[in-house]
Amino acid sequence: MINSVAIVGGTHGNETSGIQLVRNWMQNGIPSAFSSLNIRCFFANHAAMQANVRFLDEDLNRQFLPERLNSDSDAKEAILAKKINQELGPKGESNTDLVIDIHNTTSHMGATLIILATDDFHIQMARYVKQHMPEANILVEDEKPVPEHPYLCTIGRRGVMVEVGAQPQGVLREDVYQLTQTLTETLLAFCQAYNDGKTQNLPECEAFRLGVNIDFPMNEDGERKAMIHHQLQDADFVPLLPGQPIFRCFDGTDITWQGEDVTYPHFINEAAYHKLHVAFATASLVTL
Amino acid sequence: MINSVAIVGGTHGNETSGIQLVRNWMQNGIPSAFSSLNIRCFFANHAAMQANVRFLDEDLNRQFLPERLNSDSDAKEAILAKKINQELGPKGESNTDLVIDIHNTTSHMGATLIILATDDFHIQMARYVKQHMPEANILVEDEKPVPEHPYLCTIGRRGVMVEVGAQPQGVLREDVYQLTQTLTETLLAFCQAYNDGKTQNLPECEAFRLGVNIDFPMNEDGERKAMIHHQLQDADFVPLLPGQPIFRCFDGTDITWQGEDVTYPHFINEAAYHKLHVAFATASLVTL
Repeated sequence: MINSVAIVGGTHGNETSGIQLVRNWMQNGIPSAFSSLNIRCFFANHAAMQANVRFLDEDLNRQFLPERLNSDSDAKEAILAKKINQELGPKGESNTDLVIDIHNTTSHMGATLIILATDDFHIQMARYVKQHMPEANILVEDEKPVPEHPYLCTIGRRGVMVEVGAQPQGVLREDVYQLTQTLTETLLAFCQAYNDGKTQNLPECEAFRLGVNIDFPMNEDGERKAMIHHQLQDADFVPLLPGQPIFRCFDGTDITWQGEDVTYPHFINEAAYHKLHVAFATASLVTL
Repeated sequence: MINSVAIVGGTHGNETSGIQLVRNWMQNGIPSAFSSLNIRCFFANHAAMQANVRFLDEDLNRQFLPERLNSDSDAKEAILAKKINQELGPKGESNTDLVIDIHNTTSHMGATLIILATDDFHIQMARYVKQHMPEANILVEDEKPVPEHPYLCTIGRRGVMVEVGAQPQGVLREDVYQLTQTLTETLLAFCQAYNDGKTQNLPECEAFRLGVNIDFPMNEDGERKAMIHHQLQDADFVPLLPGQPIFRCFDGTDITWQGEDVTYPHFINEAAYHKLHVAFATASLVTL
């Protein structure tokens, strides 16, 4: 049973759509349709929200591993993570049945649900979301056991992320806000349907399983030699075939996709991965 | 005559398209078509570029007024402005004939040339740009004398800004990069044509004259009550008529444009104006 749900905004302080949804529900109440659930609205990183930045010292959404939670780091987000872990967790023995952590991206990923496992619960959730919100994407990051992920949402008994784009950091777009609200409400509706035993016979759905990160090509001085090709820009989750252009180099040449198979790129040109020089991530199409 | 031209990137450290164009031209040379001009490529705020932020202490593009340039402020950008004023200025007695300062915006403004005066020179420039790049917009900010503007470009004998969007901060989009390069090259081609006396009989063109800033509606706690309406989002320079929606409030109601006349909104939902709560700027249509 899913009784207690935490809805988290502001894990990254400049991702405004989740922050605004949580603020609105804090001030005006959760929609009455979900009154059978015990829902807590929660702001994760007030200081980063105030500063309108992703984080102050370190990425909060990479702190929730035992070695970080037990470290004596004085990074602001390391200290904050311990506090949040007590409030919504603790990881591994949480009283929160489901943590829904809301993010947005500069990539054109639409409304994307990120799940970290493909057990019965998450398969039912994915199928329910695709049935009720067909335009949503399901992204599966199950390359390792859930507890080994460093994400905030892993401190709940279960945890998922809502990721919506394209939206610049520090900007609130109505289209992104509405998609964020619709996907979050769909997840709450799923929880109620799951509790009522109504989610066991849903039709299979398609999802994208995370592959690897593809970096920008760099020169000897550590500078980028290319930008995302205009044919790839904004084409998140669109099939990318071998031979199709992925980078436009500053010398005017193009670099094409050299994979052996089709892939499904996403997080294309995400601003937050700027310093890492990650250009996009790959994915394979799977059936849940 | 326009002999010496400075092309500036990185006045705001997270506006990547101008930074990349300047870097590419520094490394590979200016296109040979412009060899009659003495062109200097210049990075304004290395520290902000390194940190991938707009500025460290204060907005560099608001520092170039006598009271700031003569102040003893220890803000990093106040100190930097004095240095840049010596290199490209000094303001009021500059050896640089034209400063082209390149910016980008999260607003959907396409390729926009911002001019600060409507004398013969700038009218010829605007007409030349519209003739050679019809998709470009001309934005006129001549509400006060040029020297009273705080912008970096005002330290040249003449100065203009290139402003291209939509592009998230810290992201380089190929479409925005290409528009930035095309507009900048068009300005250099204009300088050569102007020097050759070939720009005096160009047809009139339309431009937008800056009006006022419109703020987001706020509640008593200083929080926004609304977001940009989806019909206004991305509609920069599209005529906005009285009665058309501009804000979608979080209570579900809409706020409409109450001006007496049509206006031409721009800088709609610009991330950099987040803390100022500026929703957009108005403009009137003028003929140059």
